[in-house]
Amino acid sequence: MKVLVNLQVVPIGTEVSVSRYIAACVNELDAAGLHHELHANGTNIEGEWDAVFTAIRHCHEAVHALGAPRIQTFISVGTRIDCDQSLQDKVTSVARRQS
Amino acid sequence: MKVLVNLQVVPIGTEVSVSRYIAACVNELDAAGLHHELHANGTNIEGEWDAVFTAIRHCHEAVHALGAPRIQTFISVGTRIDCDQSLQDKVTSVARRQS
Amino acid sequence: MKVLVNLQVVPIGTEVSVSRYIAACVNELDAAGLHHELHANGTNIEGEWDAVFTAIRHCHEAVHALGAPRIQTFISVGTRIDCDQSLQDKVTSVARRQS
Amino acid sequence: MKVLVNLQVVPIGTEVSVSRYIAACVNELDAAGLHHELHANGTNIEGEWDAVFTAIRHCHEAVHALGAPRIQTFISVGTRIDCDQSLQDKVTSVARRQS
Repeated sequence: MKVLVNLQVVPIGTEVSVSRYIAACVNELDAAGLHHELHANGTNIEGEWDAVFTAIRHCHEAVHALGAPRIQTFISVGTRIDCDQSLQDKVTSVARRQS
Repeated sequence: MKVLVNLQVVPIGTEVSVSRYIAACVNELDAAGLHHELHANGTNIEGEWDAVFTAIRHCHEAVHALGAPRIQTFISVGTRIDCDQSLQDKVTSVARRQS
Repeated sequence: MKVLVNLQVVPIGTEVSVSRYIAACVNELDAAGLHHELHANGTNIEGEWDAVFTAIRHCHEAVHALGAPRIQTFISVGTRIDCDQSLQDKVTSVARRQS
Repeated sequence: MKVLVNLQVVPIGTEVSVSRYIAACVNELDAAGLHHELHANGTNIEGEWDAVFTAIRHCHEAVHALGAPRIQTFISVGTRIDCDQSLQDKVTSVARRQS
């Protein structure tokens, strides 16, 4: 099953700047060969369910390995069976309807 | 890796009352033998990473099988390596600090 | 406009145990006179849009005042115009459909 | 209090394609004069707490006015008192740490 995901990883119990943890997470998405797009409040990911959620587990493992004792992660995951839709399709379909 | 999860499944392109889809999803969590607690905005789940996310995939499959063409699901997932914490521990630790 | 909300406040750049911050937030909901229910991954709140989001702003102010330099908060907010629904109604409507 | 927000609005009880509702919501953000950036799983917004959450209420009102009987919206909101950070700053700070 194909999924479109937004992933936002929040390390807890660390220093206030968390960008090095987020970078480690993004590296795991790269290592998994998943299409992903970083934005200001997370990373959009496109892929198969199992591949995506295994990669997100690897993100958690990498962020803990860097010293974060606790992580709270927010995932928005979309699936549909009526059509095949990419990350880019979603942006395009809204943009062409804006006034 | 143990996870504490809040799962909120939102069927799209269906009738306005979605409770039968949510019930089908909760049945999948039961079938997976996972500890879970229904509340007004989702279901809290406690278990191992792979078991929990496989069960959530089964939820999506069950909700699609009931006729929902599209699903948007919101997952909050917490992991920690400094201690072992249950769903109940989280409620208790806040409650004992309230004024 | 009436809203049903799940609120999950995550302090960043603090100690790993965040229950005292969450308790301060819940106290703000009490102070606002809002109906709310604590669970393992957040607090469900029922109220009018402006009252609820003003109270959540007060939560952020209280958590910062306790020393948290940064907060990431996750809010799921539901509105509907086809019927009036309470937090309890949502649980009941799923529970009566479970096998 | 300045906020950085990700907003994902999900109409329920409508047709399966929801882009016209999302476009109406984005128009409300424009009307409010808020800086925002559409991406595949939501819209990032930068502004003052009250202005942002008032605009999001206007989104709900506009989406209901278009015929959606029910809406579930997911909001991730960040505040910090240690520094001033823009949407662009967040992307830049992760990107410069990636391997």
